Amino acid sequence: MQANIGIIGTGTVGSGVIEIIKNQKDLIKNRTGVEINIKKVCNRTIEKAKALIDESKITESYEDIINDNEIDIVLELIGGYDPAKDIIISSLKNKKHVVTANKAVIAKYGKEILEEAKNNNVSIAFEASVGASIPIIKTIKESYAPDSIQQIYGILNGTTNYILTRMEEGMSYEEALKKAQDLGFAEADPEFDVEGKDAAQKLVILAKLAFNGDLDDNIFTWGITKISKNDIRYAADLGYKIKLLAIAKQDDEIELRVHPTMIPKDHELASVNNELNAIYLIGKQTTKSMLYGKGAGKLPTATAVVADIIDIAKNKQDNLYLKETKKKDINKITSRYYLRYNVIDKPGVLAQVAKILGENNISIAAVQQKEINKDVVPVIVITHEALEENMIKAIKEIDQLEVAKEPTVLIRIEDIH
Amino acid sequence: MQANIGIIGTGTVGSGVIEIIKNQKDLIKNRTGVEINIKKVCNRTIEKAKALIDESKITESYEDIINDNEIDIVLELIGGYDPAKDIIISSLKNKKHVVTANKAVIAKYGKEILEEAKNNNVSIAFEASVGASIPIIKTIKESYAPDSIQQIYGILNGTTNYILTRMEEGMSYEEALKKAQDLGFAEADPEFDVEGKDAAQKLVILAKLAFNGDLDDNIFTWGITKISKNDIRYAADLGYKIKLLAIAKQDDEIELRVHPTMIPKDHELASVNNELNAIYLIGKQTTKSMLYGKGAGKLPTATAVVADIIDIAKNKQDNLYLKETKKKDINKITSRYYLRYNVIDKPGVLAQVAKILGENNISIAAVQQKEINKDVVPVIVITHEALEENMIKAIKEIDQLEVAKEPTVLIRIEDIH
Repeated sequence: MQANIGIIGTGTVGSGVIEIIKNQKDLIKNRTGVEINIKKVCNRTIEKAKALIDESKITESYEDIINDNEIDIVLELIGGYDPAKDIIISSLKNKKHVVTANKAVIAKYGKEILEEAKNNNVSIAFEASVGASIPIIKTIKESYAPDSIQQIYGILNGTTNYILTRMEEGMSYEEALKKAQDLGFAEADPEFDVEGKDAAQKLVILAKLAFNGDLDDNIFTWGITKISKNDIRYAADLGYKIKLLAIAKQDDEIELRVHPTMIPKDHELASVNNELNAIYLIGKQTTKSMLYGKGAGKLPTATAVVADIIDIAKNKQDNLYLKETKKKDINKITSRYYLRYNVIDKPGVLAQVAKILGENNISIAAVQQKEINKDVVPVIVITHEALEENMIKAIKEIDQLEVAKEPTVLIRIEDIH
Repeated sequence: MQANIGIIGTGTVGSGVIEIIKNQKDLIKNRTGVEINIKKVCNRTIEKAKALIDESKITESYEDIINDNEIDIVLELIGGYDPAKDIIISSLKNKKHVVTANKAVIAKYGKEILEEAKNNNVSIAFEASVGASIPIIKTIKESYAPDSIQQIYGILNGTTNYILTRMEEGMSYEEALKKAQDLGFAEADPEFDVEGKDAAQKLVILAKLAFNGDLDDNIFTWGITKISKNDIRYAADLGYKIKLLAIAKQDDEIELRVHPTMIPKDHELASVNNELNAIYLIGKQTTKSMLYGKGAGKLPTATAVVADIIDIAKNKQDNLYLKETKKKDINKITSRYYLRYNVIDKPGVLAQVAKILGENNISIAAVQQKEINKDVVPVIVITHEALEENMIKAIKEIDQLEVAKEPTVLIRIEDIH
């Protein structure tokens, strides 16, 4: 069967898609029966696109692709919200299937887009939007269709995982970020990655599929900028690693959060290092499983896009099933916590901190005072399970103590079963 | 859409399938649009099946299922070659799709079965045959359809991985096997698992799909019975772990082998412990990735079977693409090797061993003599890259030396990139 495609956007992913279709055309046809034909490619600068494909196929206007009767599948590979969302919706309205790698649009407008696809009896595919070639979307949608996923733990952002790995080796946050930028793993403005926003968008997509929840993309997100290499060292002393985890849990409500998390250092996720991504799933039937690999990059991402094209050509039908769900209030979650106070080293300080914790119903599991030859010393407290809102209140009170010299660092501890 | 199924075999997997269809029927219908109806169940002892399903649906004869006009999909869940192969072939000839968890039949008769399916325009699905609910078949066939997989490294047998994990903690092989048997991870007759035969069948299935090779199931297979806990300890001293790896590599020829393998202890596969399975793939485009999870068990395996039913109901078509391929002669592979000699501790012994290795073009990278207060001492030799046939010849010569007290233990070392 034929898949006639139009590609909008020829950046990293788009050029990778063209390369793969060129190199693997015969293999794909032999394996799957699908012959992929690139009908048109849209790029704002024709000169740039000429290096990739015959000039006769290049257009400056994406409308040429959306309105082309010969094109069955539109690839939206420009990213961002505008005009990406309009391209997707207009293509679907024109009865064209759409493949995208755009996590932002799917996280925010997923329901609207899925409904538009259903109404027009066409498909929308977005495997590349989370974890590049890690087949997590297909696994959740198809392999785990008969299972009830209960928990998702994802290392979904390569930039922050790379930075944390370097910090484990002794680099400061600033040094590690600089190195990530030098290697092209981090943007000049790293905020979207280091503040956890990229991971949050991806988590929302996975949670929608796993829990069939009509979830918005406004979730609790903390980044890694306040983690010091000392925290990483102290965590290691206690048998933990710190990872930026994207966590989703299904109960009566859906719990969604992205934040630096201490996990036992012998857990499978703890050995996912550098720029790699992994998703750890806990299913009712399948119990535990993990998918691991490159979460970004030209050819890994483009491979996922091409696999989506093949699926669509083979007539795989989509189903829209999202039900109303309630997101859990972050204040109502419970967790164990790592706290690092920086306090003046004088008698009675720990008693003041302990009193505040006790008044807020937080019980202490362990205390360690680190270096003792300075005026200001870090004190590490590990708590038993406590309520988030109590913890946030306690920290506010502690940070107002006269002996507190810097804001308390808080890291949630997750015992993944 | 409706999927009317007949289930042949109600052992662990079959009863799991019935349980999942019962519990998840609505969820599956909402998510995928597929309504699964169990039309008939075949069990030789009706009394046993009555605990699972309404008596009116039970038959003692599988022919009743193969010939039932109302049944679209036959589940072959009895395992083994006979009558499983006949059930599969007859069902396909009767234009019924088939889902099976039977690795033996697919590894040995895969080509014939795939051709029969194609000729009758029906599907054969076997996700559960390798790695239970780890979606490795789907990943290779669909997600990696546009990629060229170059290497596969699998921990495909839970029994042996469980035994090796316990041996790392200091148990002897016999103690670990006993414990595995007590826990139900190993059969009373463990040969099929511990000699690597189970892993070999699974590897053949993966290699057929990944390389589209028309491969038979006769591959080089060594088990774990000759590994001692000392070898595991010596390997650890050198920075390695020992795993029963199933290895497939694509070059001009296809290299297929299952044997105990030393891998760097910080490699992702080294942290796959206990009864868990994992498959590490190296693709031209996707570079490295790993899928990890429960490789056996009632509900994980049954989940994979039910996912296959859904795929078939959604009209996913199969393609048969197997090309003639040449299997690499095991004698022609190269590897680094760990050798443990048990020799009488007297002057000149190492010189004799080193001479034989040198004469066979094998160069030594490192030597360690372990305990020195005994008459017979273990000597560990790590070699540089050498040709397998040279190594086997050298070991024969060494084992004939008068100072050799026990057969040399050989473990291949794999540097997975």
